[in-house]
Amino acid sequence: MSAPLFDAAFRERLAELFRWRRDVRHFRRDPIADATLVELVHEAACSPSVGFSQPWRFVLVRDDTRRRAAIASFERANADALRGMSGADAEKYATLKLSGMREAPVHLAVFCDIETPSGKGLGRATMPETLAYSAVMAIYTFWLAARAQGIGVGWVSIIEPDVITAALDVPSQWKLIAYLCVGYPEDDHPTPELERTGWESRDPRATTLHNR
Amino acid sequence: MSAPLFDAAFRERLAELFRWRRDVRHFRRDPIADATLVELVHEAACSPSVGFSQPWRFVLVRDDTRRRAAIASFERANADALRGMSGADAEKYATLKLSGMREAPVHLAVFCDIETPSGKGLGRATMPETLAYSAVMAIYTFWLAARAQGIGVGWVSIIEPDVITAALDVPSQWKLIAYLCVGYPEDDHPTPELERTGWESRDPRATTLHNR
Repeated sequence: MSAPLFDAAFRERLAELFRWRRDVRHFRRDPIADATLVELVHEAACSPSVGFSQPWRFVLVRDDTRRRAAIASFERANADALRGMSGADAEKYATLKLSGMREAPVHLAVFCDIETPSGKGLGRATMPETLAYSAVMAIYTFWLAARAQGIGVGWVSIIEPDVITAALDVPSQWKLIAYLCVGYPEDDHPTPELERTGWESRDPRATTLHNR
Repeated sequence: MSAPLFDAAFRERLAELFRWRRDVRHFRRDPIADATLVELVHEAACSPSVGFSQPWRFVLVRDDTRRRAAIASFERANADALRGMSGADAEKYATLKLSGMREAPVHLAVFCDIETPSGKGLGRATMPETLAYSAVMAIYTFWLAARAQGIGVGWVSIIEPDVITAALDVPSQWKLIAYLCVGYPEDDHPTPELERTGWESRDPRATTLHNR
């Protein structure tokens, strides 16, 4: 079997996808079809995983009580975070919209099955955290594939993992990796919202190739 | 500014990129130009990061003594892993080629600066591990962008993070996330090497959309 050729035109579009991906917090309420989510999870399953362990578990949060519990968890954690800040940072933080959980048509929690037998432990004796990292890459594949369909994803990390895990009634060996909002974005931008609002700017250390 | 349109043809190529990406352990020895690595690191810097913290740090391992120290670390960790297995698993494990460190023209270590002030801590009070997850996504962007240029990446997780961190003489607040081999692959495949060799097969739980 011979590999597909990825030409310069594709690479330019791929770079645009990386640049326009965005963490979205402003969603339209238009629904996302279940079939689309299933398709995106299938794409995500092509992600790399340590020892071919495939430990990601995608959970669609349909139930309104569970969804409200997640929103309450974000609001509590966000209020706590604000209380931990002072001065100009606190003033600015209070103006930021850090999740689109109320508007997003889809809430999707992603877990890592830390006891999966798949992969037979290969590759994770000295760096067991690579199991969670595998789930992170599946999330990012989902994110990129969604964006290529015009669908936005927002990763809500200001949330209490124990509360979410309990609210969603998942097996105890599933570790929460991400709580995602999914939906069509209100608008598109090539720069992060935290850059546009002046919270943070590009860090030159992030584009440096260090030598050793 | 209006977003680029990602059409069906692009999405099909993107899905092919996900399918043909691969963790590569068989490299040709042809060099990779420094300019190419710099370009890939710039693409990686478009990755999502918690609070726009951009905590990834890419380190090119040029020095032969350091490179040999990394290879020795892999060989030690791999021998330990084999000793931890028994029966058919041990027999099979002993036949697997789990890194291309000797042949790969480029060794690239990727760290997470766990004390970076960028992002001012936003988004990581309740889930501090999202900082490392941000570096993981930068690694995966690098990987996909490399593959789109025909360049293969292999993530070596069978390695001792403390040994690598010491050998590379990096700041103490840099946490090792991945040790990568980079180079042109000897051949291309749409399935993981661990699937082709019979170590593990596709896990149906990885393509399931669970409902709650």
